[in-house]
Amino acid sequence: MWEDIFQAIDEQYEQMVETRRFLHQYPEVSFHEEKTAQFIVDTYERIGIPYESHVGGNGVLATLKGGRPGKTVALRADFDALPIEELNDVEYKSKNPGAMHACGHDGHTAALLGLAESLLPYKDELPGTIVFVHQHAEEYAPGGAKPIIDSGKLDHVDAVFGTHVWVNAPTGVIQTARGPFMAGADRFEITIQGRGGHGAQPHQTKDAVVIGSQLVTQLQQVVSRRVDPLKTAVLSVGTFESGHTFNIIADSAKLTGTVRTFDPEVQTLIIEEMEKIIKGTCVSSGAEYEFNYEKGYPPVVNHPEEAGLVLDRSQEADPSLSTEEIEPVMAGEDFAYYLLEKPGAFYFTGAQIPEHYYPHHHPKFDFDENALVHAAKTLLQAFRSYQETHS
Amino acid sequence: MWEDIFQAIDEQYEQMVETRRFLHQYPEVSFHEEKTAQFIVDTYERIGIPYESHVGGNGVLATLKGGRPGKTVALRADFDALPIEELNDVEYKSKNPGAMHACGHDGHTAALLGLAESLLPYKDELPGTIVFVHQHAEEYAPGGAKPIIDSGKLDHVDAVFGTHVWVNAPTGVIQTARGPFMAGADRFEITIQGRGGHGAQPHQTKDAVVIGSQLVTQLQQVVSRRVDPLKTAVLSVGTFESGHTFNIIADSAKLTGTVRTFDPEVQTLIIEEMEKIIKGTCVSSGAEYEFNYEKGYPPVVNHPEEAGLVLDRSQEADPSLSTEEIEPVMAGEDFAYYLLEKPGAFYFTGAQIPEHYYPHHHPKFDFDENALVHAAKTLLQAFRSYQETHS
Amino acid sequence: MWEDIFQAIDEQYEQMVETRRFLHQYPEVSFHEEKTAQFIVDTYERIGIPYESHVGGNGVLATLKGGRPGKTVALRADFDALPIEELNDVEYKSKNPGAMHACGHDGHTAALLGLAESLLPYKDELPGTIVFVHQHAEEYAPGGAKPIIDSGKLDHVDAVFGTHVWVNAPTGVIQTARGPFMAGADRFEITIQGRGGHGAQPHQTKDAVVIGSQLVTQLQQVVSRRVDPLKTAVLSVGTFESGHTFNIIADSAKLTGTVRTFDPEVQTLIIEEMEKIIKGTCVSSGAEYEFNYEKGYPPVVNHPEEAGLVLDRSQEADPSLSTEEIEPVMAGEDFAYYLLEKPGAFYFTGAQIPEHYYPHHHPKFDFDENALVHAAKTLLQAFRSYQETHS
Amino acid sequence: MWEDIFQAIDEQYEQMVETRRFLHQYPEVSFHEEKTAQFIVDTYERIGIPYESHVGGNGVLATLKGGRPGKTVALRADFDALPIEELNDVEYKSKNPGAMHACGHDGHTAALLGLAESLLPYKDELPGTIVFVHQHAEEYAPGGAKPIIDSGKLDHVDAVFGTHVWVNAPTGVIQTARGPFMAGADRFEITIQGRGGHGAQPHQTKDAVVIGSQLVTQLQQVVSRRVDPLKTAVLSVGTFESGHTFNIIADSAKLTGTVRTFDPEVQTLIIEEMEKIIKGTCVSSGAEYEFNYEKGYPPVVNHPEEAGLVLDRSQEADPSLSTEEIEPVMAGEDFAYYLLEKPGAFYFTGAQIPEHYYPHHHPKFDFDENALVHAAKTLLQAFRSYQETHS
Repeated sequence: MWEDIFQAIDEQYEQMVETRRFLHQYPEVSFHEEKTAQFIVDTYERIGIPYESHVGGNGVLATLKGGRPGKTVALRADFDALPIEELNDVEYKSKNPGAMHACGHDGHTAALLGLAESLLPYKDELPGTIVFVHQHAEEYAPGGAKPIIDSGKLDHVDAVFGTHVWVNAPTGVIQTARGPFMAGADRFEITIQGRGGHGAQPHQTKDAVVIGSQLVTQLQQVVSRRVDPLKTAVLSVGTFESGHTFNIIADSAKLTGTVRTFDPEVQTLIIEEMEKIIKGTCVSSGAEYEFNYEKGYPPVVNHPEEAGLVLDRSQEADPSLSTEEIEPVMAGEDFAYYLLEKPGAFYFTGAQIPEHYYPHHHPKFDFDENALVHAAKTLLQAFRSYQETHS
Repeated sequence: MWEDIFQAIDEQYEQMVETRRFLHQYPEVSFHEEKTAQFIVDTYERIGIPYESHVGGNGVLATLKGGRPGKTVALRADFDALPIEELNDVEYKSKNPGAMHACGHDGHTAALLGLAESLLPYKDELPGTIVFVHQHAEEYAPGGAKPIIDSGKLDHVDAVFGTHVWVNAPTGVIQTARGPFMAGADRFEITIQGRGGHGAQPHQTKDAVVIGSQLVTQLQQVVSRRVDPLKTAVLSVGTFESGHTFNIIADSAKLTGTVRTFDPEVQTLIIEEMEKIIKGTCVSSGAEYEFNYEKGYPPVVNHPEEAGLVLDRSQEADPSLSTEEIEPVMAGEDFAYYLLEKPGAFYFTGAQIPEHYYPHHHPKFDFDENALVHAAKTLLQAFRSYQETHS
Repeated sequence: MWEDIFQAIDEQYEQMVETRRFLHQYPEVSFHEEKTAQFIVDTYERIGIPYESHVGGNGVLATLKGGRPGKTVALRADFDALPIEELNDVEYKSKNPGAMHACGHDGHTAALLGLAESLLPYKDELPGTIVFVHQHAEEYAPGGAKPIIDSGKLDHVDAVFGTHVWVNAPTGVIQTARGPFMAGADRFEITIQGRGGHGAQPHQTKDAVVIGSQLVTQLQQVVSRRVDPLKTAVLSVGTFESGHTFNIIADSAKLTGTVRTFDPEVQTLIIEEMEKIIKGTCVSSGAEYEFNYEKGYPPVVNHPEEAGLVLDRSQEADPSLSTEEIEPVMAGEDFAYYLLEKPGAFYFTGAQIPEHYYPHHHPKFDFDENALVHAAKTLLQAFRSYQETHS
Repeated sequence: MWEDIFQAIDEQYEQMVETRRFLHQYPEVSFHEEKTAQFIVDTYERIGIPYESHVGGNGVLATLKGGRPGKTVALRADFDALPIEELNDVEYKSKNPGAMHACGHDGHTAALLGLAESLLPYKDELPGTIVFVHQHAEEYAPGGAKPIIDSGKLDHVDAVFGTHVWVNAPTGVIQTARGPFMAGADRFEITIQGRGGHGAQPHQTKDAVVIGSQLVTQLQQVVSRRVDPLKTAVLSVGTFESGHTFNIIADSAKLTGTVRTFDPEVQTLIIEEMEKIIKGTCVSSGAEYEFNYEKGYPPVVNHPEEAGLVLDRSQEADPSLSTEEIEPVMAGEDFAYYLLEKPGAFYFTGAQIPEHYYPHHHPKFDFDENALVHAAKTLLQAFRSYQETHS
């Protein structure tokens, strides 16, 4: 049976590509994914798998109960997009200004829907139950995973698996780690309140552009000087907005950014050092500030046995695949929350287009659509391996 | 007669306040002042002075030909507003989001209209001709003065006067200088092109927020180290825009700002040093840049005789006024262009509210409306003095 | 026999303290350790162990041939000091102005000499041969280890062990790692050539203090933005010297510093990024530069088996000791060279004074002298374990 | 008679050059000019003019009483050198390592001594009295002028004149101003106390090199943002010293510098803003600081009448000379103190070598020795004009 299903997935390739490209054209940013959720609902209506919508927000859960006894395993795909203006010149380019699937969540959704459709004919022979978790809002903390879990609708699940298409790995390579795999990801917002005024009279002002620039420059010291060099940390200021017009000195500046760590002590240190630097910068300039730091997703820590299933048995799904155990990566994921509740593992499905390589979140991001098939197959294989291990 | 007119202006006070407050509620930014121009046109229609609209853009010229022979003198008021969100809590607060009369041009317009209305009954006794120049777009180079001049419709004018309500001087004080009075004002725009990416992977990016901040910091050296300390110069970065969301490293940053100088050699030096600093910052980071520098208004250089008329004779308009010759100020004004073509002078009409002092272009800017009467009277007095000197 | 020797070492404690405190008072900086070397020579003369001096510089090798067959094992202690002015208020405070044993090499030497003296009576029963390697110039690349190795006088050695007293670990704790243990340590020197001049005329100069400061600030980005956050790297500017007097703008600035890495690719990247940043800073300011980067010691990579002997068997030397396998540390050591040639291991001997904790290289650095005994015992134990494993 | 003396000065040219070049080879820094003072004493001994040495320190006063009645006029020349290593390749290059006459005080002394010698034969015909004031320590506040004045030995003087050879003006040009002529010059010293440590463990330190660099960078804002752009101010950090060796993170940094202003309010503002910036920088980094600001020489404000004598009558001394009234310069001078007590004027004697132009205080500074004659003649002419005006 499994071979038949894997072949059915191969045959689903063109359908998955079509779905992915459709979603790519209509990206919706986190917490605003109403139409995408509706598309998922429509698909389950069409193929005839029972589902529940509006779970924990825009989440959709569909359940395929196999004809044979077994465990209940959740397979998760996220479906939100990013506030980026796409710069690719492709026919499936985003049609929603200022929004883009620049992280591949369109692919996750297409793969999971394709898997569901491929599986249906084999329903009666399947052991156990699959819960297809279509999760909204992965990109923006507090994220969609937590409210979905909090809804209680996954309480009966025995294990959970998920994957991310990954352009930092070649197509055909499956990567994961048996423990810490992805970093904790926090969000911060700093508002500098200076004093505006005429562009020709700086001495009557507290120039927020200059103060904010000073601050960004000094924040580099957090990682370069204040964190133990043997510990891992990232502090990125993602946005800097200040001023309204060229000849008025800006009265305020707003900075937002992210901090990534694996270790709560480093996280605490960074928050303290940021506060010190912001405060000192404001003392220097007579400005005032607000500093909001929201601790975001915890680190993604795989369960060793489930990660082992992915590493050791993914090739059974497709002999062309290979697997690699890798060092953890700095990116964050709210898949972390599922792993705090249930056994499971998260892994990367290689999807690099060597001649068009742009990192995730880049306005020219794109991925190799062959990975859609790999993602669908390996998720199914994880389900299968888990059933076989626990039967 | 003159005493009668000055008294008529005093009586016009409440009307001028009403006009000013109306305009204050409906500010329109430079080059978009259609409704304000229409209001001016409607006023001249109402009071019955012939005018011409759409002069050099949204400009309006009205002409009052006196019954006696004499010179033709232009009196100018500008009427555009700034892209600032008003923070005053007054009943005449701006009703146009993102726009504000934060520089007092509403007052200039109200004073000139009030003067026109006050003068009308004395038309037959007036020597010479007054051209009321209602100019658009003073705040944004290339400005409205130049196209109005280029229209040729002021060619027949003999002299030109203008004033600015000025919160840096007490109400009742008239300030000007017999030569250089206001600085040359240029506009620049710098775009840094880095390379965006995932907030957790800085090493794959060229972080435009960091590069832009570095640049702003280094640009401080232009004035602090590279310009002769005995020369006057200002370099202000008014806006800094970079990034779209907190967890994506920005690929580009856009900075705009202004440079003020009195001396073309200093202006040239600053452009060169800015280019060097921008280039070096990009070499350091592997980024690329675009640097557009638009030379703006030339310095306002008063004609000594006409400035002398203002300084020596303004008190005749109102014995409560005093005059002061002051050092030049850094602010720029496209009134400069009129003075390159015709004799004349520009001066400040003190308008400070001591208990509510915010500099020009501040979101809480406001001025003492008694200055409306002072502005109208001193403009008329300048006209009178000029006629008497040249008869 | 071994128990007797370990007891003899215990009894040697006061002698070791005396030796250490004597050396502490007469520190000599790297490559200038003539008197220290003479002290070592005098000691071997006194106790009667044959030695060779001036090995590869100021190095001293002493050889104790046991009466029974076995392997030849080198035990190494370094003896140079640092150019630091001591700030401790102790009776054994440095008497050499500007020099200080702020890293504990005085202790290494005292422990190794104490061990030699303790062993002598047991010479005939000893298996194999001990070479006591007293190495000069560990603190300053190219260091003393390499010329000692290059002298060929250790060619016959089978294995090598060394230790460092370590105030980051409590007394009684022995720490090491079975592979990479200490970082590669490079040295760099940057000279900025600006243009000096009168302190009141900055515009005629290229201010080297300002340019150098800009450079230090920008160099923070190497670690914060340009190195993969999952890789380990340190870039520290240790000295900044610029200018001669307060009212003359400096024409040049000299910076020296160190870079620490474990990975040659990261090392290469850092050199490239430093060059870019230095170059860009000079483009910004019209200055010129020289950049000398000397790759220093390679990383200390322990041989797993010999590190295992230290971790598994140190307690046999003294039941009060415990051992810990730790993460690698950023500090560098030219012990690395011995390990490139011979099997062996380097380890830390905990020596913290909790109520007087100052890091290594701090002007108030001091360590718990009980560690002298621990160092001597564990070095001997390493010798013993090695003999027993290879007999 | 005057023509004869002016001709005698011309004939003194070679002697003056010889004196100047001798002094140039043996420069002594401020407050250490013992041998230079002795040379001056020896000269007056040789030519037979009564003098007094050790006035207010190393100062020397010589008095030539003319045979005819008149006023007593002091002519001042300073004679200290700077702590600069000369980089000129001339045969009269400094032989004192680390010291250099890089400001031309050697020339002032040679000119005044030459003048004294030239005058002697005409003593009986001279009206009034000349006091030759050879002043030490002009370059280093509190300077030599004040103690000389405080000695009371100039109390009987009616007026005072002095000049500075000036490479920013062509030879043959005499420059001064009828009021403010040179800036007030202050000295500051900032010590940052961080926390030192091992170059590989930045997180255990407060890196003084980084903190000091941050500070220098931020101090640029004092002039660029906080001082009214219409006011004149300079803030230069002349020295930055931090750290002892490349692999130790520095625990402290010492910065010294100078501030120049013409206006006490600006001076006060700068002190306040510096304190704010230093404090904020230390808050950001957890460091501590000491900030010493010594107000130095007041501005040199010429007395208009005496400056007028220089401007209007210098050409009488030599028809090849021309005079210019110039804008004030930023350099400071303790000649200011004489002018607070007595009428007088200070002026520049042009001395530029166009093909070897290096600013004052540059290690390649040199000046056109023809200026020696111009300085001597114009000082005498100032004496003559003053006598004639007050007889």
